[in-house]
Parts: sequence; structure tokens; C-alpha cells
Amino acid sequence: MYIGRVAFSGPDGVEPRIVVAENTAGPWLDLRAAERLRLERRGAAVSAARRIALALVPGSTAAALEGGVAFFEAAHAALAAGDEEVTVAGSPTFLAPLDPTAYRDFMAFEDHFSFGYRWRGLPVPEVLYEFPVSYMGSVQGIIGPEEEVPWPHFCEHMDFELELGIVIGRSGRDIRPQDAHHYIAGFTILNDFSARDIQLKEMAAGLGPSKGKHFATAIGPWIAAAGQVTADNLRMRARINGEIWCDSSSSEIMWPVSEIVAWASASEHLAAGTLLGTGTANRGCGVELGRRLAPGDLVELDIEGLGVLRNRMGRPREGWTPVRRQRKDTDKNTLS
Amino acid sequence: MYIGRVAFSGPDGVEPRIVVAENTAGPWLDLRAAERLRLERRGAAVSAARRIALALVPGSTAAALEGGVAFFEAAHAALAAGDEEVTVAGSPTFLAPLDPTAYRDFMAFEDHFSFGYRWRGLPVPEVLYEFPVSYMGSVQGIIGPEEEVPWPHFCEHMDFELELGIVIGRSGRDIRPQDAHHYIAGFTILNDFSARDIQLKEMAAGLGPSKGKHFATAIGPWIAAAGQVTADNLRMRARINGEIWCDSSSSEIMWPVSEIVAWASASEHLAAGTLLGTGTANRGCGVELGRRLAPGDLVELDIEGLGVLRNRMGRPREGWTPVRRQRKDTDKNTLS
Repeated sequence: MYIGRVAFSGPDGVEPRIVVAENTAGPWLDLRAAERLRLERRGAAVSAARRIALALVPGSTAAALEGGVAFFEAAHAALAAGDEEVTVAGSPTFLAPLDPTAYRDFMAFEDHFSFGYRWRGLPVPEVLYEFPVSYMGSVQGIIGPEEEVPWPHFCEHMDFELELGIVIGRSGRDIRPQDAHHYIAGFTILNDFSARDIQLKEMAAGLGPSKGKHFATAIGPWIAAAGQVTADNLRMRARINGEIWCDSSSSEIMWPVSEIVAWASASEHLAAGTLLGTGTANRGCGVELGRRLAPGDLVELDIEGLGVLRNRMGRPREGWTPVRRQRKDTDKNTLS
Repeated sequence: MYIGRVAFSGPDGVEPRIVVAENTAGPWLDLRAAERLRLERRGAAVSAARRIALALVPGSTAAALEGGVAFFEAAHAALAAGDEEVTVAGSPTFLAPLDPTAYRDFMAFEDHFSFGYRWRGLPVPEVLYEFPVSYMGSVQGIIGPEEEVPWPHFCEHMDFELELGIVIGRSGRDIRPQDAHHYIAGFTILNDFSARDIQLKEMAAGLGPSKGKHFATAIGPWIAAAGQVTADNLRMRARINGEIWCDSSSSEIMWPVSEIVAWASASEHLAAGTLLGTGTANRGCGVELGRRLAPGDLVELDIEGLGVLRNRMGRPREGWTPVRRQRKDTDKNTLS
């Protein structure tokens, strides 16, 4: 099963609708309409069927996943019925398949992360071999397939990152690696766009990347349900303006998906609808290749079984940046 | 005006209810009930009044703030009417006043952040004087006043952090510092509990703190509306088991609240319901004082005009941690 979201333009503006399909070529079924139909056939009045279907299948995928098994039952029933009257017609515009509750990105590919430190002239920290290290990203920065990537005013060195996205389908805490598969709804392609210049400045402070990442993270074009793909051996490629820059594989991962999920939930709450990134695949970004993105570039990420996530870079714009402050007392604050 | 949330126990379990007051001593008014009453008095049928009041005043403060001016109109109308029948009786249990859309923490107090680097034997990075540096925290880790702080299984060195919390009341992008006050709904106390041992390990990787912070961030006991306090000169104190450990002031801040809000929104979307932390006040945590927290300790943060946020530390428990990995090739991955 594949789960996506398409744009529907109605009297209240453009709204997302959750759609499901057996194959990415379609047909895609409008899940709320399918559930409404199923309820009507089981005796519900039209208005009640609409009300219940809306509660079970909201526009938010995260809210839908929070509904638990009931949501997946509706999805499977829709595919089993396969009603033509709820098929999405024409060429729908796919939106980000998930509006994540939280977005958290790991560093699980050793060749990538060790390159990153060597590139900056730093030793590779021991902690990266002790547990999978992560940072929280911004859910407000999530964009979907074909959306233009806003180019922040403080960035001159733009890059992409080819990653596997893990969609959490069930809330948990202290999940063991051997149970992790019960908590994974599926997988999607993730492009963690990176403003390298400001990211490097920020990381010098030790708090991690922030402005260097928040402006945009692309996901999509849909979610492949967990049973659909085996995450541990997927070919992962990146094409820029049609040219292959990277040909990698998820099989090179050092921290497996099960341990990423387990550690993300260790002594903290992992919510349904959370998006976890594996971190960049080996050779899966421009800095590893000595290349950078330019305004207008077309970036395509292609992961076996997950489709192609395509985004075009926007153009730089104007914006405010703070005025530098003076150190209170240089001798006191800097180590000699 | 003060905005809080109290626990209501009904047939569907414990639910949060938004309450408002002119003074923190009360009376606290149940805002949904007050709005329902106001609608009824203006001719709404009882069931319609309930429906509309629920939409305007949900249990989620973030969702309520997303409602825009309509929410604040309801709050002001409730206080103006001051109906006794919607007064919260007895001694309500206050919950976290906000379920943030996003939580992002800055480093705006120079003595605190410069201490942090010296403590680790590192120079203070220039970037901290170039713009206010931040990291994204976990909204799933938010706890309220009087809630016990879960002690993660991987922590031996526990600390608190005394911070001012800024509540964003209106969504924006590229907000200028001079306009920031239009986007601030109010202020609350924020305790950014920190597992220092794992935090230091994580920060060595440059991605910032993650497991060292996500287990708990306390906020409350309520939100003081922006007009109620002037954020730039508030006395800030921390007491542990009744003993004053810290007596600081928001007047020592290097990056003002207006620039924190502006930079948080520069080339990215800042959502209504977001919680921004100023970062720890000068001298506002245990490491600056050479002290650490123990299981069972009572931590009280007291900010002038905002009340007292009180939490007791829980006790360590068991949990899974990953098995350390071997480096693929030590010579290749470590700088000589």
C-alpha cells in the first residue's frame, strides 16, 4: 500500500486529501470518500457517514496515524473495495505525504558523517560510534514534491541531502529494536536541504544546525507502507538537472532503522506521525562531491521502490540579519 | 491577563481546559464555558453554543492561538463578564499552559554561554556574537507545573536551566525586530532540564543536544500575556529544596527578545503556538555553580511577575542503550 496526499480545491480553498493506492501508477483512491461510502453501505446516514469519515480520515496524515488501527482498517477496506467513484481523476498534485508531528534527523551512514568531519578539518567524534546521534528539525519547513525550495537570504552555499525517511505510525516509549517494526508505518524519500555556510557557523557553537536547515526539508512523493519495501537494501540516487551525482545504497547504513527507532524512543515519547531521517546516504550530498547547487537547479532523489522526489531551487531574496555584538570581555571569555 | 490550563476529569478521562484570570490569585474562569455562555446570551441554541465555543476554545492552547484575534476577543469578553458560574472551583491542577507547535531554545545570555565553553575547555565561538544561536527541542518532552521529571536511564549528571519562555501568538515570516511585539502572546517560565553527561557527548558531534534534553522541559505555571510584564527587566531565581542557588535578571540578556523572534522567523515560518526559550539566565544552572541535582530534589524557578514553576525530580530507571560500533577504518576516519 502507498499513502499520499493530493490537493483538492474547494469553496474553502486548497485542502489536502489523503489518498491510497496498491501501485504508485494508480489508481489513487480518495480515502475519506471511500470510508464515507463504506459507512453508507453499512447503514450510516449520509451526514453521519461524512462526519465519521472526516474524523477517521482528516487532512493531516499525522492526525490520521494517531487514530491507530482504525485508520489502517479504513485504508485496507478502501483498496479491497476499489470503488471507481472514489478514484482521483486526472493528474492530481501530490503534496507532502505527511505533516509530521516532529522531524528528527540522524547520522547513520559512516562514510557520509566521517567525510563531514574530515571536510571541516575535525576528528570524527567517538560518540558517533556509541549511539546514533540526531538533531530536531523544523516541521514548519516541510515541503512536498515539485514544490520550489525557498533560498534563504543568508545562504550562498546550497546543498541537498539524500536520505531515507521513516514514518512512525504508532506512539511509543522505550521501544526495543526487535519491536521497532511494529511502530513504523512506512518509508518516504527525504531531502534535507542545507545552507552549508550558515550550518557550519552554527555547528561551531555545538547546538547543531538550525537556520542552516529549517528553510526547507522535502519529503515524498508518497509513503510506501512498511510491508511494501525492505529498507535495508534500497538503491538511492540523486540527479541534478538530469545528471547523476550520486548512486548509493541503504545497505551501507551503520545504525539500522530498528536501532534508530529504539534510540529515538529511549526515555522519551516517540509520537505517531513523527518523521525520522536516517541522515545522508554515503556520497549523497554535494559537499562529498565537491559540488554545490545553484538557483533554478532541478534536484531529483530516486529511491528504489519509493519513487522520485523532485524539487527546483528558488532564488535568493532579501532579509534581515542581526548586527554583530561585541564580546563583553575578550580575555575573560576566550581560552588563551 | 493570564492564560493557563487546568485538568478536568470527565467521562472521557482527564482533559485540559483553558482558563483565564486578571490576577494569578484568581478567580480563574473556564474560557470555553464563558464563551458558550456569551454565545447563548447572544441567541445561540445551547448545542450550537457548545459547538462554536469548542471550536474557538479547544483544549490545545496552540490550536486556540492559531485561531487569531477571535481567541483573544473571547478571553477579554470572559474577563469583562466575570461570570461566577464559569469560575473554576476549588484548587485546580494546573497543566502545562501550552502544548507548543514547536519548541526552540536560544543562547542569549553571554555569561551563561561563555561559561559553558570555558567549562568544557573550549574557546567561545564567534558565531554566538554574530546571531542568536538556537536548537530545536522536543515538544513531546513538555511537562507542566508540579509534574515529576522523568530521570532518563542514561543520565548520571542532572541539571536544571532557568529560562524565560516566549509564546508566539501569531504566525509570521521575516518578522522585523521592531514588529516582533505583534507576534508575542506572552511569557512563561521555562526549565530546560539537562542530562549533562549525554548532552556533552552529543554536542561533541556538532548536531547539538538531543537525548540530553528531550526527556523533559517544564513550562508554567501559566502564560502572562505580553501586556502584563516587561520582559527586559525581570528578577529570575532558582531554589533547590528551598535553598536559593541563583538570583539573576532578564536585564542581562545580550540578544533581546525582539531579535530572537525576528531571527527565528528569518527565511522560515514561525508558527503560532511556538515556544521560544531565551536560553539559561546568567548563573541559572547547576554547572555554573558547581552543583548537580539528585533524585527527589525539588526545583523551583521563580520569575518576577510569572509565578513559581515547581517540579520534583524522579528516580533513574532501566532502559536500552545501543552497542558501540567499530570504526570502519581508524586511519582513514581520524585526522592524524
